[in-house]
Amino acid sequence: MIKAKKALQTILKHALPLGTEKIAIEDTLGRVLAENIYSDIAIPPFDRSAMDGFAINSKDQSKFFEIIEDIPAGKVPNKKIKLGQCARIMTGAMLPEGADRVIMVEHTKQATKNKMQVTKKSQKSNVSKKGEDIKVGQLILKKGTKIRPQEAAMLATVGQTKVKILRQPRVAVISTGSELVEPKQKPKAGQIRNSNASMLLLQLKRQGINGQYLGIARDNFVATRKLIQKGLKQADILLLSGGVSVGDYDFVKEVLGSCGVKIHFNKVAIKPGKPTVFGSKGKKLVFGLPGNPVSVLVIFELFVVSALDKIVGRQTKSQFRKMKLLKDFSRRDIKREQYYPVKIKLEKPATERRGFLVVPLEFHGSAHMQALTEADGIMQINEGVKNLKRGTMVNVRPI
Amino acid sequence: MIKAKKALQTILKHALPLGTEKIAIEDTLGRVLAENIYSDIAIPPFDRSAMDGFAINSKDQSKFFEIIEDIPAGKVPNKKIKLGQCARIMTGAMLPEGADRVIMVEHTKQATKNKMQVTKKSQKSNVSKKGEDIKVGQLILKKGTKIRPQEAAMLATVGQTKVKILRQPRVAVISTGSELVEPKQKPKAGQIRNSNASMLLLQLKRQGINGQYLGIARDNFVATRKLIQKGLKQADILLLSGGVSVGDYDFVKEVLGSCGVKIHFNKVAIKPGKPTVFGSKGKKLVFGLPGNPVSVLVIFELFVVSALDKIVGRQTKSQFRKMKLLKDFSRRDIKREQYYPVKIKLEKPATERRGFLVVPLEFHGSAHMQALTEADGIMQINEGVKNLKRGTMVNVRPI
Repeated sequence: MIKAKKALQTILKHALPLGTEKIAIEDTLGRVLAENIYSDIAIPPFDRSAMDGFAINSKDQSKFFEIIEDIPAGKVPNKKIKLGQCARIMTGAMLPEGADRVIMVEHTKQATKNKMQVTKKSQKSNVSKKGEDIKVGQLILKKGTKIRPQEAAMLATVGQTKVKILRQPRVAVISTGSELVEPKQKPKAGQIRNSNASMLLLQLKRQGINGQYLGIARDNFVATRKLIQKGLKQADILLLSGGVSVGDYDFVKEVLGSCGVKIHFNKVAIKPGKPTVFGSKGKKLVFGLPGNPVSVLVIFELFVVSALDKIVGRQTKSQFRKMKLLKDFSRRDIKREQYYPVKIKLEKPATERRGFLVVPLEFHGSAHMQALTEADGIMQINEGVKNLKRGTMVNVRPI
Repeated sequence: MIKAKKALQTILKHALPLGTEKIAIEDTLGRVLAENIYSDIAIPPFDRSAMDGFAINSKDQSKFFEIIEDIPAGKVPNKKIKLGQCARIMTGAMLPEGADRVIMVEHTKQATKNKMQVTKKSQKSNVSKKGEDIKVGQLILKKGTKIRPQEAAMLATVGQTKVKILRQPRVAVISTGSELVEPKQKPKAGQIRNSNASMLLLQLKRQGINGQYLGIARDNFVATRKLIQKGLKQADILLLSGGVSVGDYDFVKEVLGSCGVKIHFNKVAIKPGKPTVFGSKGKKLVFGLPGNPVSVLVIFELFVVSALDKIVGRQTKSQFRKMKLLKDFSRRDIKREQYYPVKIKLEKPATERRGFLVVPLEFHGSAHMQALTEADGIMQINEGVKNLKRGTMVNVRPI
């Protein structure tokens, strides 16, 4: 049995990038750039009006200006502005030669058909100068940048409609256990519906991955091996649930070995999730998750998410936050690090920095999924800790 | 010109649910239940072993037990346990009649071929009782619940493979402006690439919506009207960018009127985003966003996201947090509420409740998208506020 921290280190050591692929801007949300992006243009690409108004020479102190041209956005001006002259110009349009200031339309009035009169003086130029934000050839997004909507806008601005990013893993999901039936079936005596597959598919989707569900493997060597081999063939990561505890009918470890998967650990000092198995075959990773749904949920969030982040180049930020325990908490088994479902509340009355309070929920153990639907987070209890007094600051991860 | 708070109220008043639809569990992430979900079974559905081990009668004080049956998960036991007898049982399997305790395999050893010997006494039952988590017919998920992976697991457990949820809006995106070319083209003099559409599609995707991009409308009545009518026909929400300021070439408001869209406001006391237009036609909503990308980003996050949340039944949680300003900040124009890009840092040294610090970025105005790629958040500055001293607690929204 290894400690949770050591288990995570082992997983991260084997979670390696899977090369790169080119994808369209529209598909880049949350993905990580595998190349530096440079600008092919200056931004703004020309001296540009930031207002609707009239373009003049800033040295010109006239009160009346002759309007010599109309310049909508997208048009190249063809007249030069001289003293006493102006051009009507729209936001985003190119400044004409000779002009370096735009008087906003609200500060003017029409004097005669071709004359504009300034009604309010202002020193503001209302012009965005060429290259003021970005020069031609400038590095605008670094390799390793995670793409949000604003980065997508920059990619579009510099014409990078397809970009090189770290490839996302293909993930296959297999449930094991002869007691399982698919959710659409009514369970008979001794059977239960398979809920882990649906949950894992949503956990994967939350990470931006469309997982592939391969079905239920019955508790026999041949059936289990067939599905595991299929998964190893088509996926980069295989998520199994069930079949990893000590019982005679738990074939998973044996089957994995026969498929050439090297097992790195098969027991972790964590609760829930002790019988978690982790193995690899080349760059392919196999997580043998316990059968109980609470264990699956927790181990996925703590271990699998970290592996996914590393593979796709995302920096894993700790999602744990310090929150104040609102009730005494105690436990019997202190040998393992534990994660316990809690309700999160906002501190009242609101202080300058409004803190969060946590209340442990009633929890019957790792098959008690209903408790997780009532939970907002899981609270970490360290190895060796038996009692937590009300008021203690504890580590909580929203879930 | 109306205040931002009033603008948001107006939007929310017109953002109405669009009816319900039935979708498969796998597609429910982040969606909101439009029905109560009840359990068709007890959970656990039978007295179930929580361990691999041996099922006995808890009153039986024997040291040796005759093994009369093997009960893997999924099997219905067919023998009754009497005193001096036990059944080998796996995690998740059904307890045989007469048994109410499972001795974990680690606390036993094989005495003879058919005999088990208890090596360690324990009072733990290791049995999950039938209905201990949920009774038949019990309400397990309330109408209005937002679905996370754990709720999906519960839906699967009770056989609800398709559930009724509030329908998501179809959203169409149109960019307007004769100066725009598509990102794959090299802009000529006076032109720029369209970056707002790519950005809006990613902002929509972050909300779980696949937006439909309808293209660029040139600055003329006919072209703009054609695209807006197409959008109104196929979408529930139309997002336009550009064409809404005071210039002669800004047709959007005029076109919207001619398409039967009622304009509720066309100017908001907010920076960036003053020329934001909002209208509706029946339940359909139209957002006329400004042309500058920073304005588009901010107005979408502040206004459009709130409308989407209301339509699909999600509770909008304020994403603003109090953070400490690390540098003096001042501004000239104090008439409008403002949102300014900032870098967010974690307080050092780590205190019990580690706070966040913010540093305002260099920012050239609402066309300066590069500043947003360097930003982690936007800081709110209230109307009338000119200076913010270092150390002030400010409202910041991650972005």
